[in-house]
Amino acid sequence: MSDRIRSAALLATGDEIVGGRTVDTNSSYLADKLAGLGIEVVSIMAVSDDVDRIGAAWKISLAGADLVISTGGLGPTSDDLTSETVARVAGVELLRDDRQVGRIREIFERRGRPMPDNNLRQAMIPAGAEVIDNLDGTAPGYRLRIQAGDGRRPWGVVLPGVPREMKAMFETAVLPWIAECTDPGRVIAATTFQTFGLPESALDELLRGAVPASEGRLAFRASFPKISVRVSVTGTPQEAPRRLATLAEAVRARLGGAVYAEGDASMEQVVGDLLTAAKKSLATAESCTGGLIGSRLTDVAGSSVYYRGGLVAYSNDLKQRLLGVDAQTLRMHGAVSEETAREMAIGAARVAASDIAIATTGIAGPTGGTADKPVGTVAIALATRSRDGGDSLVDSRMYRFWGGREWVKTLTSQVALDWVRRHLLGLAPLEPETLSPRRAAAGPARNAQRGGEIS
Amino acid sequence: MSDRIRSAALLATGDEIVGGRTVDTNSSYLADKLAGLGIEVVSIMAVSDDVDRIGAAWKISLAGADLVISTGGLGPTSDDLTSETVARVAGVELLRDDRQVGRIREIFERRGRPMPDNNLRQAMIPAGAEVIDNLDGTAPGYRLRIQAGDGRRPWGVVLPGVPREMKAMFETAVLPWIAECTDPGRVIAATTFQTFGLPESALDELLRGAVPASEGRLAFRASFPKISVRVSVTGTPQEAPRRLATLAEAVRARLGGAVYAEGDASMEQVVGDLLTAAKKSLATAESCTGGLIGSRLTDVAGSSVYYRGGLVAYSNDLKQRLLGVDAQTLRMHGAVSEETAREMAIGAARVAASDIAIATTGIAGPTGGTADKPVGTVAIALATRSRDGGDSLVDSRMYRFWGGREWVKTLTSQVALDWVRRHLLGLAPLEPETLSPRRAAAGPARNAQRGGEIS
Repeated sequence: MSDRIRSAALLATGDEIVGGRTVDTNSSYLADKLAGLGIEVVSIMAVSDDVDRIGAAWKISLAGADLVISTGGLGPTSDDLTSETVARVAGVELLRDDRQVGRIREIFERRGRPMPDNNLRQAMIPAGAEVIDNLDGTAPGYRLRIQAGDGRRPWGVVLPGVPREMKAMFETAVLPWIAECTDPGRVIAATTFQTFGLPESALDELLRGAVPASEGRLAFRASFPKISVRVSVTGTPQEAPRRLATLAEAVRARLGGAVYAEGDASMEQVVGDLLTAAKKSLATAESCTGGLIGSRLTDVAGSSVYYRGGLVAYSNDLKQRLLGVDAQTLRMHGAVSEETAREMAIGAARVAASDIAIATTGIAGPTGGTADKPVGTVAIALATRSRDGGDSLVDSRMYRFWGGREWVKTLTSQVALDWVRRHLLGLAPLEPETLSPRRAAAGPARNAQRGGEIS
Repeated sequence: MSDRIRSAALLATGDEIVGGRTVDTNSSYLADKLAGLGIEVVSIMAVSDDVDRIGAAWKISLAGADLVISTGGLGPTSDDLTSETVARVAGVELLRDDRQVGRIREIFERRGRPMPDNNLRQAMIPAGAEVIDNLDGTAPGYRLRIQAGDGRRPWGVVLPGVPREMKAMFETAVLPWIAECTDPGRVIAATTFQTFGLPESALDELLRGAVPASEGRLAFRASFPKISVRVSVTGTPQEAPRRLATLAEAVRARLGGAVYAEGDASMEQVVGDLLTAAKKSLATAESCTGGLIGSRLTDVAGSSVYYRGGLVAYSNDLKQRLLGVDAQTLRMHGAVSEETAREMAIGAARVAASDIAIATTGIAGPTGGTADKPVGTVAIALATRSRDGGDSLVDSRMYRFWGGREWVKTLTSQVALDWVRRHLLGLAPLEPETLSPRRAAAGPARNAQRGGEIS
């Protein structure tokens, strides 16, 4: 394999994609894998089940890249036009592959069903192509070099559109082959910092100058409720990781406590790891989040080690009966108040016999807001419970969140989980001003009890 | 607006897309909306943040369609190159829009933060373009006619990449404008049935022959945990809805109780509507789902009318202390048993004083499975509580689910919510055999989405 593969174009075929009924996740998966090999994806295209459009897309893709990977259009029906089109574009005939015919027949025998004649179409392969067996379904894939207009002969790799089948074939037969064809002298080393609590502009300012363009690349990606900061370096396999480590250290130092994880870990995973290391248990008392915090915590395998459980006290009645919130507190301050949140947290820690408890109570919207407490007003409290008669504490904050109902719930759950993280790391909780869309001047005076006692 | 818009090309800009870190869902959303107007999407392209590549993509897109819609690349940083490129392709200058400058400044004032100079870039608009205000963020969009090489002057619509901002702008200012420009003689009328409980092959068999190809189109789309069945008819504005109604009636009759909603409603919304109509209240007792059911229920605005709250009894200790599950039951049958689930449901209804309660207890995995109770074993129970001394009931089922941890949790929450729906409609609960993986393994492998099976 003398020619190196440096660039790739991805092509997805299917009426359901251009019709908006299916999202093309195959190309995103492939792009991610190729990026890991240092291959630049120059374009991702999706076209309908039409020979002219598929053909035009192939020509465009071949003109711009060393490798074209196509997914979809290999089914047994008359709408499946990829192979017919590829053969046309490559200027070759379709030939019947008898070994594939045998494999397809065998699959139907195993299923105990007769093979429709249609499925024979799937064994028609462009002449000269090297076949790639399908490990899970009937449609084989293949790869071949295709003459492009300018004398180049880029590679075309054709795979089925069913994600599970495509991934198995790609990872088994295609990825290793591509890895041999890429430039062994150039790799991309990267690390990603997951941050929460600071807006993108603040992160941008903190990192100004930390990653000079000559040294590497800094990329921000907001995927609510977090912002990922990705540092990447292109270089030889020897120097890239080393240069990356230096840049990552600088980024880490500047971002400080805003970073909750490096790599892919979720906030709840990080919280779980910290609780496990500290040998502490956690309980939840949720009103507006409705169980979302408990659900996120239990998404982590093994969370039963540190998560006892919680109360979803959605009504005032349950806040009183399950958590012991005082009727007087509800009357004087309302359900959405720091006072109520604190009593909920203390109650949860007691009922669940946990070391730490976190409570949320707020107005997720879109209805329920008032002038004093508009939609997005959320009180969060953290309480600790001493096992041996030592200090307990309870602390609370009133936040002004924004956005739709699910947005407010998600943001609240993130702030609550992040509070547990900060508590275990000895960091102060996120202040409402950092997250609030308005200055605190408009907010209520904070009536918080910090490092004090449980009433 | 004399020229009709019949075809569209979609263009998404962003390194994170071609780098495989973000899936381009914006184009899928737009394609779906355009399909509803009978506009054919001829291509969907994604390119990196590079003026040459963006420019080439624009030229390709303009050459093949009456309308090009671009998303992304309108941020304040130096990586945001869409407007610079569009101006170049259109052969016009970028002009500062003072009104937009004012709007951007105002947004930062409301947030109580200083406006970085970078954000002024977002107010640079191609000369001649009509600006589209951003209702949620800082980047305005715009539309303009662009001279294509062949004398045509297709439309370009440029929108930000942040999905929430883009959708608001599209639905408010762009979609109505496009609707005026399409062919009034041809519309697509469609309705979607949301189903749960039957595998695709069973739905396919039930619907065989219900929608002849000459009459309309049937499309299945699996988006776990549901399967949507979309019936569409193309025709004049007068006849299309009428023909659709006839086909929809046939589909509705054949699918029966597997349909939980028509249109976009979620399972939790449907359950909420039924509880409201029946004037019944609901409580939850969750173990393996960890709060997910409560969170889903409370995603629905106004759910406090019927949802009291719940207990996340993640430990055996809390199952006993919060729900009154008998220690003997846990000892004899284990936490994951129909007996325990029933006691949890009865306990929740009592503690929350609700008419109905649903309980889940199971092994979400990947660890925790045994030979007797492998990963995916989940017991679900529904209990009713009589307010006036009348009949109460409790019923349970033991399911064998499959998949990863989040998959098992999601599937469990769906079966549980669907049980409440069925209970209120007088339908029997879903039987484990219907959902068991052993039956699915014997079913057909999925090949292509062609009015029948789903890829």
